[in-house]
Amino acid sequence: MNAKSLAAIAAAAALAAAVAHAQQPAPMMGFSAQGAERERAAERIMSTVPNADRMKEIHRAITLEPHVVGSKTNYDYAVYLADKYKALGFDVKMNKYDVYIPWPGNNRVSLTFPEKVDLSLTEPSIPEDPDSAHTKGALPAFAAYVGSGDVEGELVYVNYGRIEDYRLLDRMGVSLKGKIAIARYGGQPSQMRGMKTREAYKRGAIGSIVYSDPADDGYVRGDVYPKGRYRPSTGFERGSFLDVPIYPGDPLTPGTPSIPGVERIAPEAAESIQKIPTIVISYGEAQKLLVHLQAGEAAPRGWQGGLPLTYHIGPGPAKVSMHIENDYQQRPVWNVIASLRGSVEPERIVMAAGHRDAWVMGAADPTSGAASLLETARAISTAVKQGFRPRRTIQLGSWDGEEFFLLGSTEHGEQFGDDLKKNMVVYMNRESYGAGNWGVDGNSSLEKWVIETTKDASHPSGKSLYDAWVAQQPNEPIRLDALGSGSDYTVFIDHLGVPSLGPGFSGGASGVRHSLYDTFAAYQKYGDPGYKYGVSQADTIAKMLMRLASADVLPFEYTATADYILRELDDLQGLDTAGQMRGTLAGLAAAAAGMRESAVDANAAIETLLASPAAGRDKVLPELNGLVMQVERDFTDQRGLPRRPWYKYLLTAPGYYTGYAAKTLPGVREAMEEQQWDLAKEQAAHLSEAISRAKGTIEKAAALARQGAGAAATASVR
Amino acid sequence: MNAKSLAAIAAAAALAAAVAHAQQPAPMMGFSAQGAERERAAERIMSTVPNADRMKEIHRAITLEPHVVGSKTNYDYAVYLADKYKALGFDVKMNKYDVYIPWPGNNRVSLTFPEKVDLSLTEPSIPEDPDSAHTKGALPAFAAYVGSGDVEGELVYVNYGRIEDYRLLDRMGVSLKGKIAIARYGGQPSQMRGMKTREAYKRGAIGSIVYSDPADDGYVRGDVYPKGRYRPSTGFERGSFLDVPIYPGDPLTPGTPSIPGVERIAPEAAESIQKIPTIVISYGEAQKLLVHLQAGEAAPRGWQGGLPLTYHIGPGPAKVSMHIENDYQQRPVWNVIASLRGSVEPERIVMAAGHRDAWVMGAADPTSGAASLLETARAISTAVKQGFRPRRTIQLGSWDGEEFFLLGSTEHGEQFGDDLKKNMVVYMNRESYGAGNWGVDGNSSLEKWVIETTKDASHPSGKSLYDAWVAQQPNEPIRLDALGSGSDYTVFIDHLGVPSLGPGFSGGASGVRHSLYDTFAAYQKYGDPGYKYGVSQADTIAKMLMRLASADVLPFEYTATADYILRELDDLQGLDTAGQMRGTLAGLAAAAAGMRESAVDANAAIETLLASPAAGRDKVLPELNGLVMQVERDFTDQRGLPRRPWYKYLLTAPGYYTGYAAKTLPGVREAMEEQQWDLAKEQAAHLSEAISRAKGTIEKAAALARQGAGAAATASVR
Repeated sequence: MNAKSLAAIAAAAALAAAVAHAQQPAPMMGFSAQGAERERAAERIMSTVPNADRMKEIHRAITLEPHVVGSKTNYDYAVYLADKYKALGFDVKMNKYDVYIPWPGNNRVSLTFPEKVDLSLTEPSIPEDPDSAHTKGALPAFAAYVGSGDVEGELVYVNYGRIEDYRLLDRMGVSLKGKIAIARYGGQPSQMRGMKTREAYKRGAIGSIVYSDPADDGYVRGDVYPKGRYRPSTGFERGSFLDVPIYPGDPLTPGTPSIPGVERIAPEAAESIQKIPTIVISYGEAQKLLVHLQAGEAAPRGWQGGLPLTYHIGPGPAKVSMHIENDYQQRPVWNVIASLRGSVEPERIVMAAGHRDAWVMGAADPTSGAASLLETARAISTAVKQGFRPRRTIQLGSWDGEEFFLLGSTEHGEQFGDDLKKNMVVYMNRESYGAGNWGVDGNSSLEKWVIETTKDASHPSGKSLYDAWVAQQPNEPIRLDALGSGSDYTVFIDHLGVPSLGPGFSGGASGVRHSLYDTFAAYQKYGDPGYKYGVSQADTIAKMLMRLASADVLPFEYTATADYILRELDDLQGLDTAGQMRGTLAGLAAAAAGMRESAVDANAAIETLLASPAAGRDKVLPELNGLVMQVERDFTDQRGLPRRPWYKYLLTAPGYYTGYAAKTLPGVREAMEEQQWDLAKEQAAHLSEAISRAKGTIEKAAALARQGAGAAATASVR
Repeated sequence: MNAKSLAAIAAAAALAAAVAHAQQPAPMMGFSAQGAERERAAERIMSTVPNADRMKEIHRAITLEPHVVGSKTNYDYAVYLADKYKALGFDVKMNKYDVYIPWPGNNRVSLTFPEKVDLSLTEPSIPEDPDSAHTKGALPAFAAYVGSGDVEGELVYVNYGRIEDYRLLDRMGVSLKGKIAIARYGGQPSQMRGMKTREAYKRGAIGSIVYSDPADDGYVRGDVYPKGRYRPSTGFERGSFLDVPIYPGDPLTPGTPSIPGVERIAPEAAESIQKIPTIVISYGEAQKLLVHLQAGEAAPRGWQGGLPLTYHIGPGPAKVSMHIENDYQQRPVWNVIASLRGSVEPERIVMAAGHRDAWVMGAADPTSGAASLLETARAISTAVKQGFRPRRTIQLGSWDGEEFFLLGSTEHGEQFGDDLKKNMVVYMNRESYGAGNWGVDGNSSLEKWVIETTKDASHPSGKSLYDAWVAQQPNEPIRLDALGSGSDYTVFIDHLGVPSLGPGFSGGASGVRHSLYDTFAAYQKYGDPGYKYGVSQADTIAKMLMRLASADVLPFEYTATADYILRELDDLQGLDTAGQMRGTLAGLAAAAAGMRESAVDANAAIETLLASPAAGRDKVLPELNGLVMQVERDFTDQRGLPRRPWYKYLLTAPGYYTGYAAKTLPGVREAMEEQQWDLAKEQAAHLSEAISRAKGTIEKAAALARQGAGAAATASVR
């Protein structure tokens, strides 16, 4: 019996079950009773589809060779995926961008004092892992988007290179002028590597080295690869140093797509490219430097890492020379966009996508996600073929150039921005995954809906996904955490105001990240052996896409947004050290509370509408959904955030100093953190306007819902 | 101008100042106004005496060579100190005990699988520290009071070897049967090394290795000796493994003194001697074992130490052989007891003492304390010579054999126990000190008095000692923490019920503890360079001794004892997991509250007495002071604690599983911790009786005070 006939049997069974349950339909956010019933039938079909063996087969096929952005192999893998999507009945486009992309030249890093030691910038193959023998096409140790040139100077240890670390150095009177800063990866709040370099440069550093410390990413955490999942002394984390919190994507086309005819700015003018020579190294190599970085007192307690020596800040006596060449070219970036046209509101798009390009083979990051997403596509395709075409268009995508920092997705968002702002309902990001904890970052307006949906999805343990989620964090509320940056949702939420989600399982082998050792073989041991989590995730994402694409009324719930704002305002009071913002924060809180009232009212109106006869209801749905979508857009401000106008969304953004970690209410918060009270008040005014806009839109939606339900047009909508 | 004439000038100035201030005497606990005035005059004289140069000279004289207990040098140093005390006018006794003491034989420890490696058990000299060349007489790596013999087995890592670590191993199903357990030093609550071995033996281990991990005691903490104060890879912490929580002192004479004619039990019957071959090693050597202790999963997160490898529990594959010889002999233990007879209550003794024996040269531990204490003696002697002889006897002591675990002090306490129980007012322990934080452990009944006294003492910063104490712990209340064990106060507080204090400065070079590197040279860099803290401490201890020896009424304050009991009872509720103890604990709290009321009343009566005419007052003082002293003795119980009847004091004891760290209300608490509810109730009954006894004694004291003050004998004393 083949998979197809199994699926057909299961589909028939699912339809029969749907009929049996027709008397007692469970409610489903945004659906009328009939709609919910139809949706459940579709989901029963879809759940039978995702298949571990097929996922493994695809996973194997696109992890055979290194496939960094711009490489021939990465183009071949794009064609492979496009063909797969086509075979499932999707309309597939391959969109190309020409992006200013560096590959490493002939780089050299050496200790020059007190002895001469040349550092190794390549990773040796591991006999236990034959995949790691594929070193052809594997870039050596490399920091993308950094300065070129020759520098030599004394070394200074800057801990994680967080803003608080640099500020401590400032207070201690440690100057970085003419020095080479060595920072370790990681630190909380989660810190992008480029920020470590940017802030060193601002303080006069002439070079920057970032390494993985064994305390954070190596033997201190557990056994190292291949014995365990943690980073071996020979492995390093390649990475882009692009200044994402300024703007992601092609550094030469901020705000515009890298297509023919679009003007490029001069590389020297690109604010997102780091200025000083920079490299990443392994801790095996870093130890050769740090053992001689012993001047002065021992570093502060929290600065001690896991290497067998007492960490010192220096400077020196260790001296280091760096020779960094960057081979910049306009290299091709290929996005694969697969669409399945909606039946009623076809211009409206629900999208799930992840990237395809990898630092080396990228079995976990990102290919695990790509393989799982193809099973999601197959599930949806199966349901559609059996008559369950959703009212809106579903898109699945394979981004390119994410690792160099969000190149493909950003250029896509910038190219199609006007349409996406108007028509994209939700963007879901599906990156790498592992057999670990479930989590969802995203907009609060989707929190209630996400919880409901995970109650209808299953976890490999046999529990519902929601129950497993609760069990894994018994002392924390289930909540959607605010999105920062570091993956392809950035252009959607931050630049366009498209509500975004990052649902998926985490876990896996953190210690092979961005290294030669992120292989198919490693994934079979430490990723998702048996692909059970991948199957669960494929099914869950299929349900999420299908519900969002099929709901009568889009399931946004804006009391949660108001509560989010109120919670964060409460938190901001702690930053109001001079008592300057008391009135301003109180005013914002009053506005958010007012918006909350309107949302309560709108929720009631929409429930009434969903329970009302289809005739009047269906007429208002397209316009109503437009209003419901509009509310999140109301929280964008075209003036953008201070220092970085590309960022338009006022409820969350990657921190200017963190990159990965989110700053909530970022305009107000970051101004307050730096005690710029006038700026904070100005930003608060922007936020206040946005809350007013949102409140107005919510009220319009409520009025329209009442109208559709035939309710008295004169009812209070306050 | 010599020191003597300086002192005379200062004394004259002090007397003049005293006369000038006679109109406005500051109150002083336990003193009449006239008594306080006289005491302040004495203290002004004493404060001029302690001298850094002299302290350094003495320090140098008794750190020239290794002087372990039983060695000729240690006897010579005893004679040296005895002569110094005699020269100051003290009556000096040298009391000898013959104690069953092991020295190391020809010990060998080797890794035998997967390769053969013999471990080094000696510490190399360090060129930068000429004192470390004195290796003659330095014992090699050595665990005192452990089993002898040859064993070989697979290695198992037991983390800190705390009871919770062993219980985790039990739960994980890791058996120690036939294995060699390797534990790291340290861990919280503070853990004596012998307990690590005892609990391994109980679980079937055939050998025990204890090492200093760099995470706790090495390069992770900071620069290592000689560059810094932390432990180098070549240094190890020798130590006694005697089972102190069972009983300290000569293992063959529990409860009796090791003098001629006293019967010895058989070594096999001595419960306090560990049963299996045991050794201590450096982390440089431990690494050679742990790098091969790699079987199974990585150890739990909190078990990871600071060596450059992932820690595993094992067992194996590493195998280790141990050959341990113990050269047991009856070796001489010499206490030096220097007395200065009191004028009014000469039989009553106030004592300050510390040990003299060292693991090697012992510049910090203990000789820094011995040098400082001699300056205390000099200060007191100077005041006495100028007419300020106190009413009670002051004793200063130099114990022997503390490092093998409290040999000299314990035998002293056991020999003179009957007298000490009756007549010793307070025992103050003065061990090693460093230029760090001030602290005082001890009985709560002395808390108020200690605080008052430190307000009248000075800190090297120029602040009052009390203000410096507050400044060093701004978020913690000033409190006397309960005494556990690990130094010579143990026999006094725990066996005899003599209130004890551990006042002094901590700090210094933790990383040279019990090693060849605890040298005079190291102390000049990392101990107390310039001896400023030593001077401050010598003066403070002199004041404390003088006040306790001179007070009209002894300054015990028993509402603090009641509050201590109430606080700890409150804490015990958290252990009452089955709700079995609710009534019992409530009953104890009621009793403590009743005792508190009596103490409030007694305080008032004593204040009245102190303000009343000398004629009536002085007559009752000796008897009143006897009652005031009696209260603490009321908290001893001759039945002792469960499992260890030598421990008689019911308010605090070293934990059965911790050794160093205190257990408060130990009988009740330890029974509750092990959920032995019947035993807990029995112990609560003992405590309840003790509280009743104390209450009765306090009431008698109050009545007597009123009588002395001429108050109506019929006044209520409840």
